[in-house]
Amino acid sequence: MNVSSSSLFDSMGSVRKDEFMRVYEKIIEEELKEIETSYKIPSFAIEQVKFCTSYNVPHGKLQRGTAVVESYCAFANLSIEEVPEVDLHQACILGWCVEWLQAFFLVVDDIMDSSQTRRGQKCYYLLPKVGMNAINDAMILQSFIYRLLYRYFRDLDFYVKLVDIFQQVTFVTELGQLLDTGSQNTTEDSFSVFTKENLERIYDYKTGNYTFYLPFALGLILSRKDEDDILKRVYSLCMELGKYFQAQDDFLDCFGDPEITGKIGTDIEDNKCSWLIVNALSLCSTDQIQTLKQCYGKHDNSCVEQVKNIYRTVGLVERFEEFESKY
Amino acid sequence: MNVSSSSLFDSMGSVRKDEFMRVYEKIIEEELKEIETSYKIPSFAIEQVKFCTSYNVPHGKLQRGTAVVESYCAFANLSIEEVPEVDLHQACILGWCVEWLQAFFLVVDDIMDSSQTRRGQKCYYLLPKVGMNAINDAMILQSFIYRLLYRYFRDLDFYVKLVDIFQQVTFVTELGQLLDTGSQNTTEDSFSVFTKENLERIYDYKTGNYTFYLPFALGLILSRKDEDDILKRVYSLCMELGKYFQAQDDFLDCFGDPEITGKIGTDIEDNKCSWLIVNALSLCSTDQIQTLKQCYGKHDNSCVEQVKNIYRTVGLVERFEEFESKY
Repeated sequence: MNVSSSSLFDSMGSVRKDEFMRVYEKIIEEELKEIETSYKIPSFAIEQVKFCTSYNVPHGKLQRGTAVVESYCAFANLSIEEVPEVDLHQACILGWCVEWLQAFFLVVDDIMDSSQTRRGQKCYYLLPKVGMNAINDAMILQSFIYRLLYRYFRDLDFYVKLVDIFQQVTFVTELGQLLDTGSQNTTEDSFSVFTKENLERIYDYKTGNYTFYLPFALGLILSRKDEDDILKRVYSLCMELGKYFQAQDDFLDCFGDPEITGKIGTDIEDNKCSWLIVNALSLCSTDQIQTLKQCYGKHDNSCVEQVKNIYRTVGLVERFEEFESKY
Repeated sequence: MNVSSSSLFDSMGSVRKDEFMRVYEKIIEEELKEIETSYKIPSFAIEQVKFCTSYNVPHGKLQRGTAVVESYCAFANLSIEEVPEVDLHQACILGWCVEWLQAFFLVVDDIMDSSQTRRGQKCYYLLPKVGMNAINDAMILQSFIYRLLYRYFRDLDFYVKLVDIFQQVTFVTELGQLLDTGSQNTTEDSFSVFTKENLERIYDYKTGNYTFYLPFALGLILSRKDEDDILKRVYSLCMELGKYFQAQDDFLDCFGDPEITGKIGTDIEDNKCSWLIVNALSLCSTDQIQTLKQCYGKHDNSCVEQVKNIYRTVGLVERFEEFESKY
C-alpha cells in the first residue's frame, strides 16, 4: 500500500494542519489518561502505546484526515468559519480515526512487504525494541479507532453507522491486500492475473475505499446527508479518484524521479500487478510479451531495464499522459 | 497466549460439538458466497480466505464458542432442548464469533512468539504459501467477526452491545499481550515486573477477558439479562476463573507431562512472568534469587534445570496444589 505521491488532495486544503494537530494532541492525551486509569497498567506499557502512536500516526501528510473535515464542510454547505465548534471538533476526531486506520495498515504492510523506510524514518517493526511486537502494537492502533468512536460518538444516533463503515472499509482494504499479494505470489502464471479487471479491483479495494470513500462517507454521515443514493454516487466517484491516484503512483514507481517522489520503485522486481504491466500487455507483440515474462519479477538490474525499455518502446509514457489528461 | 491445557470447561458440556460444527459449515458457506457475489474477487482469493478459515478456526476444543451457548441457556434458565431454534442458532453464531476472535489472536501470537506448532499442526504463518501474509489473513479473520454480527444481528436492538463488547475485549486482550511481552522483553531488570500485581493483570487481560468474560457476557446479552451489576459480578467471577486457568497453564508449562499437555514448555527460557517465578520470588533466599536472576530467561538446559530445582526446593509444587485445592 503506497499512496503518497499524488497532490490530488492539495487543492482541497483550507483546514489548517496545526489546528488539526491540536485536536490530535488533545485526544491522545485524553485516551492515554483513560487507559491508565481504567486499566491500571504499568508505566512501561503506557509509554509503549504512546511511542507507537506518536511514531506512526501523526507523521503523514494527513490528507485523509483533513479530507473528512473538508468533505463535512462541503456537504454541510458551510465554510470552515461557519461550522459550529462542536461539529468541527467531531469532524477532526473522525479525521484522526482515518489516520489511525492508515497507521494500522502501514505498520502491518511494512512487515508484509519487508519495507525499510516509511515517511522518511525507519519502519516501525525494524526498531530494535519493537520487532514482531509491531503486530500487536498495530492491533492497538486499530482498536483506538473504535475506542475514539465509542468515547466521542456513542450517544449520537449515527454511532452505529460510524462503527459499521470503519469495519466495512477495513475489510475491503484487507481484500485488496489479499488480491495484491495473491497476484504477486503466484509464480509462473502470474501474467494471467495482470488483467484490467484485476487491476481495477486492486485499486478500488486497496486505495479507493479507505483513501477516498471513507473520508467522504464520514463527511456525509456527519452532515446527515448519507442517503443511499448519494453514498452510491460518491462511491463511484471515489473509485475513479482512486484509479487515477493509484495509476499515477504506479507510473511514478517506474518513471518518477526518486529525488521528487522520495522513494525508489520496485514494482517490476516485486512482480506487481501495476498500471504499466497491464497496459503493456495490451500493446506488446508476442516477442515482447515473451521478454516481459522472462524479465518481470526478477531482482536483476538488466532485467528491470529490459522491462522499462519495452514500456518506452510501446509508448506507455504517452499512453499514461493521455490517460492523465482525462482527469 | 496459550490457554489450552485446562479441563475447566469440560464439566459444562451439554452442547453437542457436531451440532455446533453444523452451524459453522452453514455460516462459512453463506459468508464465502456473500464475499464472492458482493466483491467479485477472483477464485484464488476466495480459496485463500476459505483455506485460512478452515485451517485456523474450527480445530480447537471450541470451549469458548460452546460456552456462549451454555451460558445463554443457563442465564435464560432453559435446558438446551427448551431453547427456541432461532435463539439457539444465534447463540451458536455468537459462539463462532468468539472462536474467530481466538483464531485471529492465535495466528498473530504464533508469529510474535515464533511458535512452531499449534493444535497439532504447523503454525499457519510457517506454511510456505502463507508467510507474513498471515498477518493480513488474520486481519480478515478478525473482520469476519463484525461481518457475522452485521449479517445476523444488525436489526436487533442489542447489535451495538455485541459490536462494542467484541471491540472492548479485543483491546483488553491486546493490552494483556503488551504487558506480557513487555515484561518479557525488559532485560536486566525484568525481575522488577515479576510482581503479583502484574501477573494478575496479565491473567485478567490476556485470558480472563476473552476466554471467560466474553462468552458469559454474550450469553447475558442474548438472554437480555445484561444489567450492569450482573455484568460486574460475572466479570469478577470470570477473572477468578482466568487466574486459576492460567496459573494451571503456567504450572503445567514447567511440571506437566508433555505427553499429556501436548507441548514442551518454554516459559523459563522465554523470561515469562509466570505464576511460578512470581511465587518463587516471595519464597526464595537472597542467594536463590541471585541464581534465578542468572539462570532465568536463558536458552540453556542446565540453567532451566537450576531454576526448576529452586522451584522444587522452595516447595512451589505443594504451594500450587494448595492454591488449586481452593477452587
